[in-house]
Amino acid sequence: MRLNLGSTRRPVKATGLIALTTDFGLDDPYVGILKAVLLSFAPAARLLDLTHGVPPQDVLAGCLALEAARPFVPAGTVHLAVVDPGVGSERRALVVDAGRDLWVAPDNGLLSFLPEGEIRQVRALEDPALFLRPVSRTFHGRDVFAPVAARLASGTPLESLGPVVDTFCRIPVPAAVITAEGVRGEVLTFDRFGNALTSLREGDLPAGAWNGRVRGRWIVGVLTYAAVLPGEPLCLVGSSGRVEISVRNASARDVLGLGRGEEVLVRPC
Amino acid sequence: MRLNLGSTRRPVKATGLIALTTDFGLDDPYVGILKAVLLSFAPAARLLDLTHGVPPQDVLAGCLALEAARPFVPAGTVHLAVVDPGVGSERRALVVDAGRDLWVAPDNGLLSFLPEGEIRQVRALEDPALFLRPVSRTFHGRDVFAPVAARLASGTPLESLGPVVDTFCRIPVPAAVITAEGVRGEVLTFDRFGNALTSLREGDLPAGAWNGRVRGRWIVGVLTYAAVLPGEPLCLVGSSGRVEISVRNASARDVLGLGRGEEVLVRPC
Amino acid sequence: MRLNLGSTRRPVKATGLIALTTDFGLDDPYVGILKAVLLSFAPAARLLDLTHGVPPQDVLAGCLALEAARPFVPAGTVHLAVVDPGVGSERRALVVDAGRDLWVAPDNGLLSFLPEGEIRQVRALEDPALFLRPVSRTFHGRDVFAPVAARLASGTPLESLGPVVDTFCRIPVPAAVITAEGVRGEVLTFDRFGNALTSLREGDLPAGAWNGRVRGRWIVGVLTYAAVLPGEPLCLVGSSGRVEISVRNASARDVLGLGRGEEVLVRPC
Repeated sequence: MRLNLGSTRRPVKATGLIALTTDFGLDDPYVGILKAVLLSFAPAARLLDLTHGVPPQDVLAGCLALEAARPFVPAGTVHLAVVDPGVGSERRALVVDAGRDLWVAPDNGLLSFLPEGEIRQVRALEDPALFLRPVSRTFHGRDVFAPVAARLASGTPLESLGPVVDTFCRIPVPAAVITAEGVRGEVLTFDRFGNALTSLREGDLPAGAWNGRVRGRWIVGVLTYAAVLPGEPLCLVGSSGRVEISVRNASARDVLGLGRGEEVLVRPC
Repeated sequence: MRLNLGSTRRPVKATGLIALTTDFGLDDPYVGILKAVLLSFAPAARLLDLTHGVPPQDVLAGCLALEAARPFVPAGTVHLAVVDPGVGSERRALVVDAGRDLWVAPDNGLLSFLPEGEIRQVRALEDPALFLRPVSRTFHGRDVFAPVAARLASGTPLESLGPVVDTFCRIPVPAAVITAEGVRGEVLTFDRFGNALTSLREGDLPAGAWNGRVRGRWIVGVLTYAAVLPGEPLCLVGSSGRVEISVRNASARDVLGLGRGEEVLVRPC
Repeated sequence: MRLNLGSTRRPVKATGLIALTTDFGLDDPYVGILKAVLLSFAPAARLLDLTHGVPPQDVLAGCLALEAARPFVPAGTVHLAVVDPGVGSERRALVVDAGRDLWVAPDNGLLSFLPEGEIRQVRALEDPALFLRPVSRTFHGRDVFAPVAARLASGTPLESLGPVVDTFCRIPVPAAVITAEGVRGEVLTFDRFGNALTSLREGDLPAGAWNGRVRGRWIVGVLTYAAVLPGEPLCLVGSSGRVEISVRNASARDVLGLGRGEEVLVRPC
């Protein structure tokens, strides 16, 4: 994506809150090390774990988690987001001013959910003086991203962190397709409860009552889990604004045998 | 349960500490979003994760986790407890003054462990002005409970949060049964180490030495894991005051093939 | 190990930061209870989770996690480290001044990674007045270690916590063996991504290019994951300074069928 920047609005003022989103999991000390580096550079920072449970190296799932969480995170937060299958390659490291928040992340599409119109400034992290030394080849979260996020949260201005860049990597996030049959989408990921998050959003739905079809089965569109009996499937607009396929008090993934990429069709009823 | 309230004692004074207990798990951003909302409404609050690993929608397991943790949490803490299979239905949302701490939770039995005599005041959360808007149908943790917990931790008086209610949902927590054979109980849940927590408490035990029987096998009652050889089963009073069935340096769940609801019998030896 | 102490250097000054490392996992409220106790004794302390995902009762894996994290944790931190298969037995509880940080842990080898030359003072925790009362037989993390760590972080001098001891339990951490074939090591543990951490360190490697052999298969030694194609195996020096066996964008554990203790051989190529 080529950026069309040049805003003259004032930069976001960091509040000292750093939100962390990674695919590191919590079984290893990686997240702890990340936080240790943050607190070394910014002893007064407050840390907020959004999630460290993004499936390993799954940039799209990281995008969806960040998209769901972002509106609820206080303005002025520095987001440290690391899902980084290309660590050690030539992919750039970025810092982004997105109007209400600041982002430190690899340039691999992880920030694709940021609306283009909100991006005010993107800079590339290139100055080794900002990083831990030596920079390892495999853990830029620790050596590159965390020191920069901590500096930013402590008030270092974005302008001093690297040169402006005018391109920005985006990955395609599947969206609704209108067909003769209805609105077609797909399962993007699952949550802990086995609910399937789809590529369909609230705005893609027909006005009035609707049903969803998955694996040849029609499933009732409802407003709340309690609208069906325990064990019954349902479709609803989930808390992130996306259409979800669920089974009341059970896992749709298991009960319906759903996989990622599974086609979902919605139409009025 | 019908409450017999009317205490004139002073209300609990919130200290700004918020303790979180949910069944959200840590794979998704749900817990992060909850905390983001808490920090939006109460930027100075301190957050304490008790656990987010309650098995999905398992109100009894949530009760047991809260019962085990409560005595160690500083007085004046606001507890935000969300295990909420009935989200979106007519179940009420409550705020409770329990003498040493304050509780924000769904009215579904999750607070059944609170001794009736300690409950000073229960109010129903009904005022949309206290919540995020719009309130989703599926994530009241974010939209209803977190904003209220944050307000409470910031000093908003309980009295302003809703009307007094005089009933309170309790679920039966299995307890000891005295039989001709001995004291009978059951396995309630398991911990990470595979230890089985039972419905028997320290006070249910006979004076002096005792053994436990499970799946037809007698197991020695001891004071400490080290009293038996590695790989051997044992019964003891665990750290939460409940009788536990364990295998030294291994998982009782796996080694003994235990399931939830399994009968346990204790008698003197 | 017999300690050779007697340093006259000034003791570490605690900063109020407490780093936690346990094998408690996050499914149960144990970690939450630990933190509740810390905040009860030290309301102003800051808590830093290094990891709670050490495999249950795996003292060596705990050692490796602490070794990897320690250099990045701010000086003056009190480390509370609990992997304690011998809880309730006669194993001692220790507090250690290691020059840049303070440690509270069972005396079971968990601190074996601390270089002998850095240990300034070791004291045994024996005074029940420092602990929660009564001390349970099964949860010394809560009853013994947490209250002491909190006191230490709040400024209680090490000298007041117990008598000096001059021995200290160490476990053997497997190291490189030089053979006619090359440098031989073994797989010690795995991380979340399925990377195998070995007993070989950067300093054990030959100068110049090298390869590794595991299960009879030669694997290229590289500097970064991106040096091989996705799905291909590689060896590299990981972020903790240990040789790791990986598969790009996949799990070496699964793809190569590796287990703990698997022999690894490295030689120049």
